[in-house]
Amino acid sequence: SQVVVHKGSPRGVHFRRAGPREKVYFKPDEVRACVVTCGGLCPGINTVIREIVCGLNYMYGVDDILGIVGGYRGFYSKNTVKLTPKVVNDIHKRGGTSLLTSRGGHDTIKIVDSIQDRGINQVYIIGGDGTQKGAALIHEEVEKRGMKVAVAGIPKTIDNDIAVIDKSFGFDTAVEEAQRAINAAHVEVECVENGVGVVKLMGRYSGFIAMHATLASRDVDCCLIPESPFYLEGQGGLFQFIESRMKENGHVVIVIAEGAGQEFVAQSIHDVNQKDASGNRLLLDVGLWLSHKIKVWSTSFISFIVPCDDIDPTYMIRAIPSNASDNIYCTLLAQSAVHGAMAGYTGFTVGPVNGKHAYIPIARVTETQNTVRLTDRMWARLLSSTNQPSFLNSCDDILLQQERVDRDTVDMIHKMKITST
Amino acid sequence: SQVVVHKGSPRGVHFRRAGPREKVYFKPDEVRACVVTCGGLCPGINTVIREIVCGLNYMYGVDDILGIVGGYRGFYSKNTVKLTPKVVNDIHKRGGTSLLTSRGGHDTIKIVDSIQDRGINQVYIIGGDGTQKGAALIHEEVEKRGMKVAVAGIPKTIDNDIAVIDKSFGFDTAVEEAQRAINAAHVEVECVENGVGVVKLMGRYSGFIAMHATLASRDVDCCLIPESPFYLEGQGGLFQFIESRMKENGHVVIVIAEGAGQEFVAQSIHDVNQKDASGNRLLLDVGLWLSHKIKVWSTSFISFIVPCDDIDPTYMIRAIPSNASDNIYCTLLAQSAVHGAMAGYTGFTVGPVNGKHAYIPIARVTETQNTVRLTDRMWARLLSSTNQPSFLNSCDDILLQQERVDRDTVDMIHKMKITST
Amino acid sequence: SQVVVHKGSPRGVHFRRAGPREKVYFKPDEVRACVVTCGGLCPGINTVIREIVCGLNYMYGVDDILGIVGGYRGFYSKNTVKLTPKVVNDIHKRGGTSLLTSRGGHDTIKIVDSIQDRGINQVYIIGGDGTQKGAALIHEEVEKRGMKVAVAGIPKTIDNDIAVIDKSFGFDTAVEEAQRAINAAHVEVECVENGVGVVKLMGRYSGFIAMHATLASRDVDCCLIPESPFYLEGQGGLFQFIESRMKENGHVVIVIAEGAGQEFVAQSIHDVNQKDASGNRLLLDVGLWLSHKIKVWSTSFISFIVPCDDIDPTYMIRAIPSNASDNIYCTLLAQSAVHGAMAGYTGFTVGPVNGKHAYIPIARVTETQNTVRLTDRMWARLLSSTNQPSFLNSCDDILLQQERVDRDTVDMIHKMKITST
Amino acid sequence: SQVVVHKGSPRGVHFRRAGPREKVYFKPDEVRACVVTCGGLCPGINTVIREIVCGLNYMYGVDDILGIVGGYRGFYSKNTVKLTPKVVNDIHKRGGTSLLTSRGGHDTIKIVDSIQDRGINQVYIIGGDGTQKGAALIHEEVEKRGMKVAVAGIPKTIDNDIAVIDKSFGFDTAVEEAQRAINAAHVEVECVENGVGVVKLMGRYSGFIAMHATLASRDVDCCLIPESPFYLEGQGGLFQFIESRMKENGHVVIVIAEGAGQEFVAQSIHDVNQKDASGNRLLLDVGLWLSHKIKVWSTSFISFIVPCDDIDPTYMIRAIPSNASDNIYCTLLAQSAVHGAMAGYTGFTVGPVNGKHAYIPIARVTETQNTVRLTDRMWARLLSSTNQPSFLNSCDDILLQQERVDRDTVDMIHKMKITST
Repeated sequence: SQVVVHKGSPRGVHFRRAGPREKVYFKPDEVRACVVTCGGLCPGINTVIREIVCGLNYMYGVDDILGIVGGYRGFYSKNTVKLTPKVVNDIHKRGGTSLLTSRGGHDTIKIVDSIQDRGINQVYIIGGDGTQKGAALIHEEVEKRGMKVAVAGIPKTIDNDIAVIDKSFGFDTAVEEAQRAINAAHVEVECVENGVGVVKLMGRYSGFIAMHATLASRDVDCCLIPESPFYLEGQGGLFQFIESRMKENGHVVIVIAEGAGQEFVAQSIHDVNQKDASGNRLLLDVGLWLSHKIKVWSTSFISFIVPCDDIDPTYMIRAIPSNASDNIYCTLLAQSAVHGAMAGYTGFTVGPVNGKHAYIPIARVTETQNTVRLTDRMWARLLSSTNQPSFLNSCDDILLQQERVDRDTVDMIHKMKITST
Repeated sequence: SQVVVHKGSPRGVHFRRAGPREKVYFKPDEVRACVVTCGGLCPGINTVIREIVCGLNYMYGVDDILGIVGGYRGFYSKNTVKLTPKVVNDIHKRGGTSLLTSRGGHDTIKIVDSIQDRGINQVYIIGGDGTQKGAALIHEEVEKRGMKVAVAGIPKTIDNDIAVIDKSFGFDTAVEEAQRAINAAHVEVECVENGVGVVKLMGRYSGFIAMHATLASRDVDCCLIPESPFYLEGQGGLFQFIESRMKENGHVVIVIAEGAGQEFVAQSIHDVNQKDASGNRLLLDVGLWLSHKIKVWSTSFISFIVPCDDIDPTYMIRAIPSNASDNIYCTLLAQSAVHGAMAGYTGFTVGPVNGKHAYIPIARVTETQNTVRLTDRMWARLLSSTNQPSFLNSCDDILLQQERVDRDTVDMIHKMKITST
Repeated sequence: SQVVVHKGSPRGVHFRRAGPREKVYFKPDEVRACVVTCGGLCPGINTVIREIVCGLNYMYGVDDILGIVGGYRGFYSKNTVKLTPKVVNDIHKRGGTSLLTSRGGHDTIKIVDSIQDRGINQVYIIGGDGTQKGAALIHEEVEKRGMKVAVAGIPKTIDNDIAVIDKSFGFDTAVEEAQRAINAAHVEVECVENGVGVVKLMGRYSGFIAMHATLASRDVDCCLIPESPFYLEGQGGLFQFIESRMKENGHVVIVIAEGAGQEFVAQSIHDVNQKDASGNRLLLDVGLWLSHKIKVWSTSFISFIVPCDDIDPTYMIRAIPSNASDNIYCTLLAQSAVHGAMAGYTGFTVGPVNGKHAYIPIARVTETQNTVRLTDRMWARLLSSTNQPSFLNSCDDILLQQERVDRDTVDMIHKMKITST
Repeated sequence: SQVVVHKGSPRGVHFRRAGPREKVYFKPDEVRACVVTCGGLCPGINTVIREIVCGLNYMYGVDDILGIVGGYRGFYSKNTVKLTPKVVNDIHKRGGTSLLTSRGGHDTIKIVDSIQDRGINQVYIIGGDGTQKGAALIHEEVEKRGMKVAVAGIPKTIDNDIAVIDKSFGFDTAVEEAQRAINAAHVEVECVENGVGVVKLMGRYSGFIAMHATLASRDVDCCLIPESPFYLEGQGGLFQFIESRMKENGHVVIVIAEGAGQEFVAQSIHDVNQKDASGNRLLLDVGLWLSHKIKVWSTSFISFIVPCDDIDPTYMIRAIPSNASDNIYCTLLAQSAVHGAMAGYTGFTVGPVNGKHAYIPIARVTETQNTVRLTDRMWARLLSSTNQPSFLNSCDDILLQQERVDRDTVDMIHKMKITST
């Protein structure tokens, strides 16, 4: 069947299944494609680039593929590079992006002018939330000008916080690599008396990396994520948990997503501004904030030693090449995007929905954000494996946090097709 | 919902969804559980052991858990070891199985005698196809004797060839590790003129590891699996493909699953027996057979150089610890098994079916074997990414190979429940 | 020959060559040995522990070996653990120290009391500079009391800053692991326009890790170490170099040892205290200080982008297991220490001097510190491979920095021998 | 001092110390250098290539550097590639050789013709024993024709069996990587009852890799090398050792260098030819031969199980990139070679002798081979750490095996200098 049902939606959201189509919209020798990468690094970008190029060339015989250099602003400020299977042959073994990247620089009019001037009719845009919003604007402008250009977005976020799709590329690699940091913290605290290790992992708005890394490692005593509020003091608080776990094991490892506990950090800044101006940076980083809080508490309370500073492996994770599992995943994303664009779809992103690769209108993935649902089984599994406090008084809050995705978007999909003339 | 639909079945097969149950059949302090591991090594066994022990202890407060040492025969020939969360705390970081393993040694009567004598009422059995068949026999004997014993199987096969379930544990790790062998072969042949590298990967009856490793690596020119017959000579044959790819790139890497081309190997042995008795071992190993054939062909035909012997990373793959993704997966399997046994289910195995963890009657996973379907998208993706020949004259053969799984097994599930008296 | 010449000394310093001796001072069944680990983690500690235990047992048949738990204070505040080859069999595959560690806690009298009370006659002390000074005090007190106790120190410093010996254990592993951080920084800055990456590596007083990691990586544009003063502004300064390298390559990677540029950091703190109190932590960390300085300079001067925060892999490096090369090295150190103690030497440390393993009076390794000599070939090789500025106006300073080790210590060696009664 | 003493030689052999010279023989803009790589792969070749190119360019400003493609025959059968720092910038991160390689193809006259025709005046030759002999012939022919051409050899052998120099490049990496195979074998045999694992490592004529890998791993029960004859049966034989170790530990891991026990293998072939013709390949491979012998012995004798086939990681070791330690080492070799050639030396190889980098006449490194000396400390350390039998009846044999290097070669060094006209 060519329709994919999006679970987690009352009436069901249906997307078109990704894959080759009987009717190909573009003639291969008329295609001039381009690929651009925007935003921060993430394992797998080079694999996606490689597979778009190889997919276009091997599956459809397309020869004319341009690389836009340095993100959106590369459309109007830089020369392009010619991409061939030979040029991209080995890039998937390197981290980063061989097309370079930048943040911002999105000027819809200038970009679409450039697309028009260069005679490009397929645009593949790899990037995060902001980038995909930019892709939607490009798509709109392209439609407005009546250009026959397919705009395909490949969503990129190491945090797995893109809505609708099951998983974002690079996520598996990030979870794998995060084990190294957790392991380092665990070794450190195991080797001293009453050691506490705080490992800050990526995840500004969602705790997926922290949650999966915790489940994979088994060395973590407590995992703190943005979706699950926590508190330090009193009954059921973090300090009480640390104290009891310390008595039991002699050491504690805490994983904290960078977006967790932001309300405390904000409050600290406010407090500080009232009193004195020191330690600004300390308070902007939740890992440092938490380390600091634990130190202050443990020395005033009991003579706990907290020798570990926070360990932040963010840059080491972002820059590595993708692992085998992500390589396969990136290949599927790229091939789906190529099939979709060749079939004449536009304004779409690709990704697996409920296990099946689908075409999704760009707006769908940018209007909400994927977060860990505290009522889901995975979080329950984490709680039962760490035995950490739930920090909850009632379940009311959780229900409010659930995303409401209930509109049927089949109509929107029809709009994605490039209108024939 | 508590029912999982098995895709790939006309009328649909329904399994009970795995997870905690409201009613727990066993009182924690009455539980005496045991864990046994059988058959060859596979990444993740230690994680499964660890999580069964921690799951029983943390989630249900079970304290009395025995490790049976050295496979099935450990039930009657060895002393057991006491398993506690402390004992198993670090074992997931090591490859192999901390309970040791053996092949065979299954004597149903003696094993059930031992279970009865020791007062065991939960049996967790980690092992492959033969082991699970043994588990089914134990389950039957236990039922026959009217014992209140839950028998839970955790299916283990590095080859991913277990029917019904989506994926077997250790598979991801195996695919990741196989990259190293493929990469070594690729480097070797890239550095000489007209080099051919043959990498033999695991997969006696199914080509999943070969297929996924090929898709992940992008350095493979041709992937040969048991499910897809191939031929060497003539139009559309492997030699022709090697020749053309060699002209194009100057080197060729072939991945072959150990079970591929067995008909040729068998024929060779037959031929050899007719003529002379040399080279017996050569012919039992498809990697050596293929290397040999390519050497003979290339020297008699054109002056190709084939410097690479076959590279067989089997033992290096089997023995490594599981990666992060497999660790999470093993945790889910173990927790499912614990929830099921505690709820009084018996004669079941656990695993994800269509993305959801389910309880499956043991017989279901042993009656057929999972194989790569040549009509599925993943194989199509492989073909389009390697551009290798399909070796097919008609599609008739493929249809015949598809497994026929069409009986509804809901009835069988009801039987799994331990009958109350 | 049994004498080792210490190069870098005018008249030559001679040490006794390490190795088995014809005359063994202790009878194996009268030996009660103990092992203690102190100070911060370093790859290889567990290998040293293992090989002391296995060496004593396999080579001399010693059975009575105690592990002191948690550093020096473990002598009087903790119970000991019994160490056997079986107990230590696998510890070398794990990072950290299986005997735990702590800083400080040295109370000579209480420690020697404990040694006396427990009937210990061989003490193996693994630790850094401060720890070895403690070992010397223990040795003195032991001599004073006329106890027949051999005190052997195994010098530990990940920074390679121990005087006299060629190399400290864990150093090779640290340099290897540091590559990951440098590579991450390089990937990040390669993928943006005008990126600067600052990687802070260990090395409070010496730049060996930074120097070797730079030479090994080839991705570093400039390496800053404590031994080589540098300046930021003006002709021949760091900013000028960054600017020119940026024009050439589009990105710059700087490795800085944590002890480099401390005079600037100190000055900054002073300045700040005069003006305002913000950013205290920022200024204590030379990595943050340098990143900050580059940011301020580049935005006010030209529009360089510096997206990389500092990358500090310190904890990830300290906690990993030692690599093959360090494992062999740790084995040699441990065997040397065992041979020395069994032969009745005391108050000595072990280590290679000019390529040959030697026994060295403890005081010799603590009275000075090993630093990178700017006049040596290795630093010259680094300069010629990075082509970075030398930041030097004259060579006078360098000469003053050279350590002066010119006393002959043969006399001291004689004193090491336990005086027979 | 500019002279290096070669230890292990009665009167002492003196070589010129490597490094930059005051007088440079070639003017940079008159240099046309070429680099060629021959023989099998070895970690670090790409680093040597890179550092020759960067060294010539950064240290001397040489711009005209050619890469000869595909080994010696590339001189006359192939076009060359231009090498610049930019071209070689990242090659050290990949295994293999970016210049391709081949065996044989040495035709002195045609090669020197090609050197003459192309106007090359510096030839850098990376390769093993045979390759260096070829380099010596090229040097002689060049001298004969009175050409002003510097011929520099960089000795390559993963086995560390090159005479005179302390260590060959890639060796450290090989020892590190060999740990993976040993570890795999160890995990396999640990998990079964009475398991024996046989790991074959590289080392046709010398057992350095086997010896160092054994010392580093600590998981090996017995290490068999070409230099130390062994026997299977009877008192003090391997079988007796296996049996006793098996009783003690339940498993045995044997590391065997590929060149060990060749007399047995040869005898087996002879026996087989007399009787029947089966199993030819089995007998050419000492790993297979030993596995086979153990299987036959153990089943006829006692019911030992030997589940492990031999594990041969050779190709996986050859093809990986060099580690940090080897990268630094390759850099020093390359820089030495460049300094030497620029100073006008010719007919020399480079390498550390007694810890100091030296220039060595090519003939010196090819006339003998480096082997493990059974009387040296390292082998003694291995024996005391594995506690394996020495397989020796008297010490006579050992003495005979020692290499005799006693001629002074200072005269030869003088000849290396290009004679000025």
